[in-house]
Amino acid sequence: MSTETSNEPAAKKQKKEDYVLYYWPGIPGRGEHVRLAFEYVGIPYTEVNEPDIMLPAITDPKSSGYPPHFAPPALKLPSGRIISQTPAILNHIAPKFGLAGKKEGEDEEEVRSTVNQLVLTALDLNNETHDVHHPISSADYYEDQKTEAAAKAKAYRALRLPKYLGHFEAVLQANPDTKNGARAYLVGTTTTTADLVLFQIVDGVSFAFPKRVAALKATGKYDNVFALKERVEEEPRIKEYLASGRRQPYSLGIFRHYEELDGEE
Amino acid sequence: MSTETSNEPAAKKQKKEDYVLYYWPGIPGRGEHVRLAFEYVGIPYTEVNEPDIMLPAITDPKSSGYPPHFAPPALKLPSGRIISQTPAILNHIAPKFGLAGKKEGEDEEEVRSTVNQLVLTALDLNNETHDVHHPISSADYYEDQKTEAAAKAKAYRALRLPKYLGHFEAVLQANPDTKNGARAYLVGTTTTTADLVLFQIVDGVSFAFPKRVAALKATGKYDNVFALKERVEEEPRIKEYLASGRRQPYSLGIFRHYEELDGEE
Repeated sequence: MSTETSNEPAAKKQKKEDYVLYYWPGIPGRGEHVRLAFEYVGIPYTEVNEPDIMLPAITDPKSSGYPPHFAPPALKLPSGRIISQTPAILNHIAPKFGLAGKKEGEDEEEVRSTVNQLVLTALDLNNETHDVHHPISSADYYEDQKTEAAAKAKAYRALRLPKYLGHFEAVLQANPDTKNGARAYLVGTTTTTADLVLFQIVDGVSFAFPKRVAALKATGKYDNVFALKERVEEEPRIKEYLASGRRQPYSLGIFRHYEELDGEE
Repeated sequence: MSTETSNEPAAKKQKKEDYVLYYWPGIPGRGEHVRLAFEYVGIPYTEVNEPDIMLPAITDPKSSGYPPHFAPPALKLPSGRIISQTPAILNHIAPKFGLAGKKEGEDEEEVRSTVNQLVLTALDLNNETHDVHHPISSADYYEDQKTEAAAKAKAYRALRLPKYLGHFEAVLQANPDTKNGARAYLVGTTTTTADLVLFQIVDGVSFAFPKRVAALKATGKYDNVFALKERVEEEPRIKEYLASGRRQPYSLGIFRHYEELDGEE
């Protein structure tokens, strides 16, 4: 499977071959965090998803160049260099795409690092959500670690998920730039990679744990987090992307819905 | 506990109060990755470790400023801004400390992103090593999840640890800048934050899983990884630091030695 997007004005001077995303087929996964950045700004990209082509392209030094990569997602830059690791990719493209929170009177690199920090914390939640259904070994099936997954899901629902949502709510409430109740930006008053990553994770967790998320939402303690999620999904290019065939449904990736792992508490 | 180092020539124009590291007392932990960068370049820093002071300082917006932080380590920059998340801290200071792999003829930001990527992959191993003794819940004791830890340790020893070591060995072998068998730098021919992080993790894993690491070392498949570890520990300021009272022993942090979790296979 190979996808192309090249219909946006901001992208006019960029060729679609300039950026190539290497990722697994059939799941949004960690690749989705990279896709959302491209989709939000309307910069075109191509994808290589066929495992037999994708994996050697990034892990075999003969084709990846230096350095070979541990795992997808990986992004080939216009220079030809490939960068892997979701937070490294996002931190690299954020300033080039205007998603690094640049703000007059503030050190550009420091604001970028704050955005990077928030991306990393959100991706920690991403990883913990994955580990709920694979607590023992990522090389084994969920079905082989169901008992342990049930125990981990209990701690995740009771402690970890509320802790992360509470953190992002506190960040949104502390943002000194947002006024009049419109606290739907993590940094400043423009969309950053941190907003896009948090959107994707809240969306994915809502799919995987619908009962628990509904219960947490009903407490009213995380209103700004859910407002951010709703704000991002209404951003014009994101709205168009979500409605397009390019947005893949959740299945057996990071965000999986197992009825037995969900619960109101 | 508060530590100070201010005895290095490179540090002359910097005041020790310019950088403040917030981290837990009594363990090297993730804070160690930040300490090693400062120690390697000889830039002074102070630490705040007392939990009752350290935690509110970084998590309460009244003292942390914007944004509040999820967890230590966090580093206060000379500007007063606090950055948390180990990889964000390291990526921020790397170019300022000359640890970002800058190389003539290469795009500085791209090389920095490659270093960031390698740091992130090494820190993924750091996290997986932690999760071996806490597979179900970080809020519970190891003693409450020993059975699950034993199962996870088996997969970690057999699959995950060799996979990571193999990756870094492949990166070291692919480095086009190292010649004459001296492949002890991940990027170019100068020390980067990636080298320091990999050193610390190989050191910690060797403490936690001595039998498994000895068996893997004996295969001869990871010689460049172990050469890097030995090269870094002989770097003059690192050698001095390791011999000083400032280097804390491993105890009940990320790298724990539980006899029952180790094994040759």
